[in-house]
Amino acid sequence: MGDCLKLHIDMNCDLGEGYGAFRVGNDAEIMPHITSANIACGFHAGDPVTMARTVSLAKKNNVAIGAHPSYPDIMGFGRREMQLSPEEVMSCTIYQIGALQGFAKAAGVSLQHVKPHGALYNTASEDEETSKGVVEAVRALDDELIVLAPPKSVLAKVAVEAGLRVALEFFADRAYNADGSLVSRRQPNAIVKEPREVVERVVNVIKEKKVLATNGKVVTLGEVHTICVHGDTPAAVTLVETLKKALIKAGIEVKPLGSFV
Amino acid sequence: MGDCLKLHIDMNCDLGEGYGAFRVGNDAEIMPHITSANIACGFHAGDPVTMARTVSLAKKNNVAIGAHPSYPDIMGFGRREMQLSPEEVMSCTIYQIGALQGFAKAAGVSLQHVKPHGALYNTASEDEETSKGVVEAVRALDDELIVLAPPKSVLAKVAVEAGLRVALEFFADRAYNADGSLVSRRQPNAIVKEPREVVERVVNVIKEKKVLATNGKVVTLGEVHTICVHGDTPAAVTLVETLKKALIKAGIEVKPLGSFV
Amino acid sequence: MGDCLKLHIDMNCDLGEGYGAFRVGNDAEIMPHITSANIACGFHAGDPVTMARTVSLAKKNNVAIGAHPSYPDIMGFGRREMQLSPEEVMSCTIYQIGALQGFAKAAGVSLQHVKPHGALYNTASEDEETSKGVVEAVRALDDELIVLAPPKSVLAKVAVEAGLRVALEFFADRAYNADGSLVSRRQPNAIVKEPREVVERVVNVIKEKKVLATNGKVVTLGEVHTICVHGDTPAAVTLVETLKKALIKAGIEVKPLGSFV
Amino acid sequence: MGDCLKLHIDMNCDLGEGYGAFRVGNDAEIMPHITSANIACGFHAGDPVTMARTVSLAKKNNVAIGAHPSYPDIMGFGRREMQLSPEEVMSCTIYQIGALQGFAKAAGVSLQHVKPHGALYNTASEDEETSKGVVEAVRALDDELIVLAPPKSVLAKVAVEAGLRVALEFFADRAYNADGSLVSRRQPNAIVKEPREVVERVVNVIKEKKVLATNGKVVTLGEVHTICVHGDTPAAVTLVETLKKALIKAGIEVKPLGSFV
Repeated sequence: MGDCLKLHIDMNCDLGEGYGAFRVGNDAEIMPHITSANIACGFHAGDPVTMARTVSLAKKNNVAIGAHPSYPDIMGFGRREMQLSPEEVMSCTIYQIGALQGFAKAAGVSLQHVKPHGALYNTASEDEETSKGVVEAVRALDDELIVLAPPKSVLAKVAVEAGLRVALEFFADRAYNADGSLVSRRQPNAIVKEPREVVERVVNVIKEKKVLATNGKVVTLGEVHTICVHGDTPAAVTLVETLKKALIKAGIEVKPLGSFV
Repeated sequence: MGDCLKLHIDMNCDLGEGYGAFRVGNDAEIMPHITSANIACGFHAGDPVTMARTVSLAKKNNVAIGAHPSYPDIMGFGRREMQLSPEEVMSCTIYQIGALQGFAKAAGVSLQHVKPHGALYNTASEDEETSKGVVEAVRALDDELIVLAPPKSVLAKVAVEAGLRVALEFFADRAYNADGSLVSRRQPNAIVKEPREVVERVVNVIKEKKVLATNGKVVTLGEVHTICVHGDTPAAVTLVETLKKALIKAGIEVKPLGSFV
Repeated sequence: MGDCLKLHIDMNCDLGEGYGAFRVGNDAEIMPHITSANIACGFHAGDPVTMARTVSLAKKNNVAIGAHPSYPDIMGFGRREMQLSPEEVMSCTIYQIGALQGFAKAAGVSLQHVKPHGALYNTASEDEETSKGVVEAVRALDDELIVLAPPKSVLAKVAVEAGLRVALEFFADRAYNADGSLVSRRQPNAIVKEPREVVERVVNVIKEKKVLATNGKVVTLGEVHTICVHGDTPAAVTLVETLKKALIKAGIEVKPLGSFV
Repeated sequence: MGDCLKLHIDMNCDLGEGYGAFRVGNDAEIMPHITSANIACGFHAGDPVTMARTVSLAKKNNVAIGAHPSYPDIMGFGRREMQLSPEEVMSCTIYQIGALQGFAKAAGVSLQHVKPHGALYNTASEDEETSKGVVEAVRALDDELIVLAPPKSVLAKVAVEAGLRVALEFFADRAYNADGSLVSRRQPNAIVKEPREVVERVVNVIKEKKVLATNGKVVTLGEVHTICVHGDTPAAVTLVETLKKALIKAGIEVKPLGSFV
């Protein structure tokens, strides 16, 4: 990190996830509390008007902008694994990032990062061919873009090897397995619901680089650069507000990735 | 025109109009004979893989690249008028141009022009709000981009007023009405089929700035900068080849828009 | 009406308007208070899983089922006018009704009615070609299906001429112009918000066949068979509950269209 | 088989695989030579107008009609595996069959069979949950519908256990592995190109219930009821014509599935 004397962290959130008349989330409410916005690019959500408005909203709140590319699956919200060839992954990723760069250009801002969405994120985290499709797309468009990835993932490794900057991500409200992977959403204990616990875990992972896994063991995740939070309910927004205050109180500076990764 | 001593013209063609397994046209065959390619951007045709390949094919043939944005209507191939708000037109246009800019960036080339497709072209030609949506999108992205438009159209007027460069377009094989508009495709005499007639008309419009309308009257169109040709059948490709040779023989230089508009 | 001694009315509501992860409305809350459900069929909303669940929910609540076909426009929620040929309108309508009939068959129920959605409803109400596309589709599938249409509309006329049963519809919370048409949603006074006023208007239109237009004149609409209500907010659900009680108290029986049209 | 004294077989072909302006195949040319048509239902191809026309064309040629449901993936032509839940598979299948039943009803014909398309066919052939989704959809709609499946497949087994009629299918021009499965299309030897060989293999599988696998071994497939042929090129149409003549000459009657399965 750039500043060794002070701990710092980025807070990222998925935004612009409506589609036409389908409204999702509380973008205007969550924006003031985060530092990086992952903006849907039309393949799982995010019609063009929503994209334009979300970029504008992020700019107004001084939130850094990133692309949130997905498999092409509006009906499944990008959560269904699809067997795409590496060429398809790369082209779909270029298409979506390019489209968002268009809105960024029109608004006079630049993209900071790229975070694959949903099933594409999960697959790219584990599968080398898929992660290469994503990484090659990013590199072809702008090698200054930061790739968000889970600690120890294939995606992180492939992005680093390609010479890209990588931001390692911790999920504020998701439980972790003993091997450092996320507990599947299909498991009943996948979500950490208690706000106090969420805050403690986040502060701990930043300071100690460790998380308590569901089996009771402590897992070393290593340094993380960004915390993934949610803004889809009023309670979620309140939690993010609480978390941010707690981080600042704990002496951790909250600022956009681009300033330190 | 830049070079007053020699006549010149651009030849543009719609390309990359396949969609996934749906193959359309003879892109590889037509490319060597044209100077500007209007590339589908995913809303009427042109999935991401097709876009990537078409950009690459154009680059290999030294053909200048332009975006061919459409109403969002794959099922109707962008030929059905849709009532979009100006904000929707602008955002849909930014989205599609941005996506193509992504592929251009990845291939190391830049966009030369923008030509709205199908029903969007027709509506933007006549309707001020729609043309403003298109023009504002172009200007927000890159005010060096040239807008293709019919002579005397609202689109041409709005683009010029916005400070953009405009290329006026003549359709090689379409019949014209006495007011300078195109004969509707629904009319039996909409298409000029005789190759000799196509060639004569094109040479004539470049040299004399006039076309013979279906009612037998001569219409003054004014200067045109580009000829729209088709490449969707082997016969069409042959016609374009013939046309290009005839233009060169008539002392007219065939070169990309960007070099003289 | 079948039973001359007692006034009766149907209450219809648009339902199943989510799409995959996009959740819309409060279907489970509104169902107990209505008699006919217009179910989205996949072209503006209503993915297959949502359709199956909505049919099942309607069946459980003894609510009659109808198809709610739309122009093919998920991004625009079917609210954008599209220029479809009569063949396209007819085929799109058959497709959507057929799909819903599939879910009805699977659930052991039958369709009662068809109500075009959004822009298709508006256009079919005024345009003869479009209304014929819808009506021919209905007739080809099941000539027992009831078509919902505005009083005095082209759609109502065309459906009657084709030998179909028609249910004339009054919008509970929409203001009317002096010619009996709806005040456009773009006008500030398009919606009647005061619950007391909504109730009075509905009771009045059933008993007196008249509505007070925005210009202060009383318009004779003639007999109406069904009241369109909304269930997309908790307040809307409460209003429908209130309205239903008021209707019953006013001696008006609330029952499905199929039993009396 | 019903008639023990004479051999018989059905010939099925995928049809109606265009989408709007995207034209695919030579449906009018192949129709006279086949007995069963698998008609695309809008999820990989087959917009509503194409569906209506294809049903009408099949009727005119006395060809039996079947649904060809797919994963929802126009861009990938249904050839990309997608991870759908059993509920999603079932609902998507009901939706598509229901829609085709609508067109059949409108044309005064009934459906004979259902054949999953592309990746859904492959997955349903091997995966029990997926095959159950398809089979439950068919059973819920019409338990007289015949399910097409590969010999020895999970899909065939699940359909039989559900009480449905199953037609086992042999691919005329595809090579087989020693275990009776198809050689993947990614292998260079996946397609049998020599017309004489295609004919011999088909006659042999009908008479001897065996096929020569790529490793030189003879595989017993058991009885097959239908031969899958293609009509997407003029050469393919000619091959089907040749094949049909050869079958008749070999004393094998070619007739629709519904008459003997």
